[in-house]
Amino acid sequence: MRLSELSRRSGVATATVKFYLREGLLPPGRRITATQAEYGEEHLRRLRLVRALIQVGGVSVAAAREVLAALDDDSLDHNERLGTAVWSLPHGRPAGPDEAADPATARRRADRLLELLGWGYGPATETTPPAYGMLVTAIAALERLGYPCTVEDLEPYARALGRLAEHDLDLVERYGGTPDEQVEAAVALTVLYEPVLLALRRLAEAEESRRRFGSH
Amino acid sequence: MRLSELSRRSGVATATVKFYLREGLLPPGRRITATQAEYGEEHLRRLRLVRALIQVGGVSVAAAREVLAALDDDSLDHNERLGTAVWSLPHGRPAGPDEAADPATARRRADRLLELLGWGYGPATETTPPAYGMLVTAIAALERLGYPCTVEDLEPYARALGRLAEHDLDLVERYGGTPDEQVEAAVALTVLYEPVLLALRRLAEAEESRRRFGSH
Repeated sequence: MRLSELSRRSGVATATVKFYLREGLLPPGRRITATQAEYGEEHLRRLRLVRALIQVGGVSVAAAREVLAALDDDSLDHNERLGTAVWSLPHGRPAGPDEAADPATARRRADRLLELLGWGYGPATETTPPAYGMLVTAIAALERLGYPCTVEDLEPYARALGRLAEHDLDLVERYGGTPDEQVEAAVALTVLYEPVLLALRRLAEAEESRRRFGSH
Repeated sequence: MRLSELSRRSGVATATVKFYLREGLLPPGRRITATQAEYGEEHLRRLRLVRALIQVGGVSVAAAREVLAALDDDSLDHNERLGTAVWSLPHGRPAGPDEAADPATARRRADRLLELLGWGYGPATETTPPAYGMLVTAIAALERLGYPCTVEDLEPYARALGRLAEHDLDLVERYGGTPDEQVEAAVALTVLYEPVLLALRRLAEAEESRRRFGSH
């Protein structure tokens, strides 16, 4: 398909598609004349993923480029590609100015939690996923703002998300036929389900608060 | 305590504390001289909440002011204040430019899900919480980006978050002695646990992907 059809089918403006091409977020099409190129279904899929990352996930262009590089890295096996792409997803919200406070306590807590779960990360190393750093920062913020949490407080959340991860991966297998499509689906679904989860949590809390404190 | 001590104990720069006072995010202290005011523990608590909202939650100053107004509204009973404060929490990430696409299908799906759960919202009305709009937008984004989800796909997430909400409210009761403190804790914990949840989800997915596709 031509650029105009790619734009129409994806709902992304042609100027934006051209911007993504220039920024290397979308591979170039197959050139057919000096001024025209041909795009395939893989471009459409990739374009949807880029929009999920940038528009829903709040990920920067530079960070999206890194995630896509992990996704396209042929030197990794399927599991490694999938894990690396999801791990390397940056947290959309930039850390606050003093989030750099020493997170030693938070780090120990995160390590003990992961050990308890048997999630096999152990203390941080070079290959520690960004999601681990995100967890440490979040635990440190709770501590700093007067709501210290113990490993026991965190465990129910981790167990519940562990069970939901099975469901997440079932969806990945459903949407992704080929290994390439599966890796793309894993990244897109990770990002796209985040606001679903956060919204459902707030509704669930309001419901539980009504049950517990409601007068009617 | 004086402003300098409030700043020291909260870890928030005096210039920032003054900015929050000017913006009405922090109630004024008790004036003791023409140039000095006295602040109490309630100021410290409120300051921590404001930082949770703005720095961790990515909420704007204007939106934080609205949440705090719901929290201070004496015309509401405890459950209503708690529910309203959590409901009125805006989603930190601004919606993308075309998130305004007709969400009729997404809305029907959200309504059927809430009905199935018995969460008692029914179709959107004037008092529908922002979290409902956040859910509809998130479902519409999944649909638009080629990953349509059914009510059955969403149900396991909702059930899991429903169970976690009991745990959330246990924490609220533990941290909040007085009803005022409970409402503040509910808002702070809702925001502060969001990155914890998202980080644990990514780690859980990587773990599940290793189990399912890993070669070692």
